[in-house]
Parts: sequence; structure tokens; C-alpha cells
Amino acid sequence: MTTATATVPTTAGPAAAAATAVAAASVLSDDPAAHRVLTGDRPTGPLHLGHYFGTLRNRVRLQDQGVEMFVVVADYQVITDRDLADRLAEHTENLVLDYLAAGLDPERATIFPHSAVPALNQLLLPFLSLVSVAELGRNPTVKDEITHSRQSAVSGLMFTYPVHQAADILFCKADLVPVGQDQLPHLEVARTVARRFNERYPHADGSAVFPRPQALLSEAPMLLGTDGGKMSKSRGNAVALGATEDETARIIRGARTDADRRIGYDPVDRPEVSSLVLLAALCQDRAPEAVAEEIGDGGAAALKRTVTESVNEFLRPLRARRAELAADRGHLRQVLRDGAERANAVADATLAEVREVMGAAI
Amino acid sequence: MTTATATVPTTAGPAAAAATAVAAASVLSDDPAAHRVLTGDRPTGPLHLGHYFGTLRNRVRLQDQGVEMFVVVADYQVITDRDLADRLAEHTENLVLDYLAAGLDPERATIFPHSAVPALNQLLLPFLSLVSVAELGRNPTVKDEITHSRQSAVSGLMFTYPVHQAADILFCKADLVPVGQDQLPHLEVARTVARRFNERYPHADGSAVFPRPQALLSEAPMLLGTDGGKMSKSRGNAVALGATEDETARIIRGARTDADRRIGYDPVDRPEVSSLVLLAALCQDRAPEAVAEEIGDGGAAALKRTVTESVNEFLRPLRARRAELAADRGHLRQVLRDGAERANAVADATLAEVREVMGAAI
Repeated sequence: MTTATATVPTTAGPAAAAATAVAAASVLSDDPAAHRVLTGDRPTGPLHLGHYFGTLRNRVRLQDQGVEMFVVVADYQVITDRDLADRLAEHTENLVLDYLAAGLDPERATIFPHSAVPALNQLLLPFLSLVSVAELGRNPTVKDEITHSRQSAVSGLMFTYPVHQAADILFCKADLVPVGQDQLPHLEVARTVARRFNERYPHADGSAVFPRPQALLSEAPMLLGTDGGKMSKSRGNAVALGATEDETARIIRGARTDADRRIGYDPVDRPEVSSLVLLAALCQDRAPEAVAEEIGDGGAAALKRTVTESVNEFLRPLRARRAELAADRGHLRQVLRDGAERANAVADATLAEVREVMGAAI
Repeated sequence: MTTATATVPTTAGPAAAAATAVAAASVLSDDPAAHRVLTGDRPTGPLHLGHYFGTLRNRVRLQDQGVEMFVVVADYQVITDRDLADRLAEHTENLVLDYLAAGLDPERATIFPHSAVPALNQLLLPFLSLVSVAELGRNPTVKDEITHSRQSAVSGLMFTYPVHQAADILFCKADLVPVGQDQLPHLEVARTVARRFNERYPHADGSAVFPRPQALLSEAPMLLGTDGGKMSKSRGNAVALGATEDETARIIRGARTDADRRIGYDPVDRPEVSSLVLLAALCQDRAPEAVAEEIGDGGAAALKRTVTESVNEFLRPLRARRAELAADRGHLRQVLRDGAERANAVADATLAEVREVMGAAI
């Protein structure tokens, strides 16, 4: 299960580095501190390399540029699946562990569990009034989620999911949301909710309560799982950030390749081999063609050796930090508590503003 | 618009006094303080005699028997209608005014605005996960609300309405909900949500988080508006509790009757006349047949005089209290603030319990 596509799906990578970089650069040249980014994941299992190169790296870059980050750990979107909820606290802490190891700084990024911020979720009520059932049913991402859902019946939570996401984004007045192309319809719901709310409930001076959040559009790199399918921790086809070097070697050794000893970078005709080449290239920060050229006629064995070494070397400092941090579970929970406190303060202020423009009695 | 049928619809009266009385009596003989009742209204306008004899009187009785009352002022269900939201604060305060004048005691009954209790509304998230879209679409009361809605498209708020009501009821672990027959499907959703939640997320010792709320079944008395239709403040066919004696006389003078000078009580064949007779009877606390007999051949004019006098006399002490209370708007807001504080404490405790059994990290 890809956690990154779950709540506030964020995908970015070198294939579309141009688009992201342009946006990030313009953010930076503007006034990075004037922007607020909302992003996050569902705590469903360890983050892997797909998450790292798809989203996590970009978040750290944005943070380091001075953009204010809110990172929601979307436990409420998991909690409803009993199998996972059994280990929810553990998954939640481990997600924070992966975040911190990858470079998110809890002093600068507000990392908080969704279920601990009531005022965020209360926005759901006015927001639900601003979208019709027909609009909810038409949302292509919800349709897709419904198709791929393991649940037999579509729950009310799933059906209203884009509205929850709108609350996630708007509670902190985020103006930028890193998303992949396929996630644009979701963001569009948040933009629609913001527009309709602002039209219906302006401040006395006519100003708007919510910004209309913009997509920080990006594409994930074409990294496949070792079985040639979508990278997914539950399918055992991905290298977890926290895996040992031996585990990493074992997983890459089992990767599907092809019979052509000449290694090349050709994502269309040789997707599995090209994905491995790309992974090594991302770790080495080189062009995939150069990596393939270097391996030359070495075949799958040489490719896998290169990939294993590149990944392990690349992840070594991250894993060292991770091991250090993992020793102190209390610290991870404290990060969540501090994040929840900050998120609650922001959410309470937004909710107070919302209730005021709506004309509540007290 | 009947406010009483809106959020936690409660209808009760002499026609079904037996059913209510039995339930109330058994509650009383049990241990009244062991029960908690959830009831409430949307703040859409002044309460009228239909509300009084339909629900308000019964709430005061339950309160006076020692049952703990939570009374939700369902501002979030109104707030989404711009025309009403303009005067939301005023309507909310006036609803409290009517409550207090009728005898609800804010020291014993917790009267609170829906929008001021975030933890209540946060229950919506887990609860939404426990009902399917198909179940929501099938709910007859939602279907009916949709049919009678003035909105052109069904909003997400309307569609998920029974789940909101479940949160209203369960946040305070109410075990009794006064409802009319037509409102049973709504309560059934709350019961289903409670059952599913308890099954899925039991306490470590196997005990349940939520009670399964029971209906305090009742029927409204057959009071019609003065135009022979449903009593509704917006149609000007009802006597508001806070109306002056002259306004009361004027409204009753305009009531539809029939040409038969002999006054009788025959709700089936002479609904308008019988409704007036019943109203006088309720005010005098006598049988409607006795009231009709007394008027005899006096015709519509005598009937209306009797009704006017009965209503004005009956409401005199209530109106005197109301006038006193109306002078201090600050007090009304303070009642809401105190109620919100108590409701928030209860909601926070329930939410903490919910998050614990669901396995949240912090």
C-alpha cells in the first residue's frame, strides 16, 4: 500500500524535477516563509525508497528553503481498517521516525496526528454543506479509491474523503500542496470548498477566510517494485528506508530483470531493468544513462550489485540517524504531541474565524 | 419550518401521552439520574405552541424527574443556509430564551451550541467509516428531508445527516432519545453506529464504549396551523411562545374553521375546529370533548375566544419569565457558554476514550 497516495498524496521526482524545481524556485525567490505547505501520509507501514524519491526528499527541500510545512499523519484514514488499527500507534511512531531520519525537522515542520486535532475535523461540517452528493460521486480519485478498496461497501468516510482532505489543507490555510497529476481532482475539491466558503461567508471587510491552495505539481520517478509492479511495502517489493543492508541486498537480489546482458536505460521497452538503473542513478545523483553505460555488459548481477551498493551507501547516514532516533520512542511521541499542540492552536484560530464569519452565537 | 423535526426531532404529547408516560414512569421508578437524554432543535426561529406541547413540555418533565438532559442547539444544521445564518446568533439566543421560559433549567440541563463542541463533531470521522453510502442513501428520513429541502442539490451535509445525529447522541452517551415514530430510522442509524463501533473497538476488558440509545417513543398532539396545514413559524400560522396577547388573539382570529355552529371534537372530519379545541384543552389541561361541549352552539367566534383566552392565560407565566430573561442577552450567551463548557468536557472525555480504543499513538 502506498501511503503517500493516501491522504495528501505527494509525488515528485527527477522525471518532473523541472516542474517542481520551477515552482520551488519561484517560491524561494518570492518569500519562502510566506508560504505554507500541507502534506502527509497514512501511517500504514514503513516508508520505502519510492516514498523517499517521490515525496519525502521534496518536502525536506521545501523545509530547508524556509517554507512552513504542516505534515499530517492521517491516522483517521487508517483507523477504520481494523487490521492496521491494531498496530496504529506503532505505525504512527515509525512514520515519524522515517520523517525525522529523512531530514524533516520537527522544530520547523509541524508533524501531527489527524485524530488529535478536533478543530481541524470540525471544519468538515461547514465544508460538507458546500459540496453536493453528485460532486462527491463524480470525483475520479474517489472512484479510483473505491475500485481499489478492500472494503466490500463504500463507507461514508471514503465517499466524503475529498472533503476531509480539504479540511486538512485549509485548517492551516496552506497555499501550496505537492501533488501528482492524478491527484489534481482532489485538490480541486479543496479549491472549490475554499472558493464557495469565501463567497458565502466573507469577513465583514469583504476579505476571504481561506486561500485557494495551489498544486505544487510534480511527477513521481518511474520506480517499480522488484516484481515489476507498483512499489508497495505490503507486497515486499520495495526497500524500506529502515531496512538493514542485508535486507536491502536480499530484496534487490530478487528483483525481476531480463535476459539481455547489455544494461541500458529504456523505461518503455525494459521497465524492470530501467527502474533499477534509475534507482542507482537517483542514489548516485547521476543520469540513469551514465549509470547504465558504466555497467555496460555486466548483466543483471552487476546491475544488482551496483544498485545494492548505491542504495546502501545513499541510505547509510539516514539509517544511522534512524537507529539513533528509534532508541527513544518517547521522543517520537513527544514530536507528535508538540505537533498536535501547534496544529491545534492553528486549527482553533481558524475555527474561531470560521464560526465568527458564519455568525455563531458564542 | 418546524425546528423540532430538524436535528434531534422530539415529538410528544397527550395523544400518545400513554407511551411517553409509561417510558418516563419506568425511567423514574428505575433511577432517573442513571439516564441521560439527548434532545435539541435547530435555531431557525421562535418556538411555538406546537413545539411546546409536542416536545418542550416533555423535556421539562424529564428534567424535573431528575433525568440528565443534554440539549443541542443545532446551529451547524442551519448555518449552511445563508438566509438564516444572517440571524443565527439572534435565533440561537432566542431559542435559549424559549427554553428557559418554558422551564428548562441550565443548572440541570446542558444547553449548548453544536458548533462550539469540536470533539463531538470529530466523532463523525470514525462514525462515517461505520456506515456505507448505500445505507445513507436508503435512510427514509434523509430521503424525506431531501424531498422537502429548498436546496437544489443534496449537500454532503444533508446526506451524512444521520451520522451527525449519531454523534450528537453518542458524544454524551445518551441512552434515551425522545422521538416521534417517523424519526425512528434516524435513531436506528445511531444504534447501528454504536453497535458497530462497540464490536470493532471494544475496551481491553471487552466492555463497550457506547450505550445503544433507546427511543422514548411519543406522538405529537394533532395541532394544526391556523391555516389547517402543518404548524410552522415561517408560515405565520402558529402562536409563538413569545407572542403578545394581542398577536395571539390576531393569529387565532384568523384561524380556519367551518360553518357548523355546533363545536365538537372530531379530528378526522373536522380537523381545523378539532385542532383549536385540542389547543384550548391542552392549555386548560382538560379533555377536548369537555371543552367542545362547553362551547356548544357558540360557533367559531366563541371557540376562538375560548382558545385565545386559554392560550394567553396558559402562557402568561411563561411569557412573564420570558420578558424578564429577554432583558439580559448576556445571560443567554452565558448559558450557551456554560453549556458548551460542560458539553466540551463530556465530549473530550468520550473522544479520548474513542481514540484510546482505536489505538491512536498519542
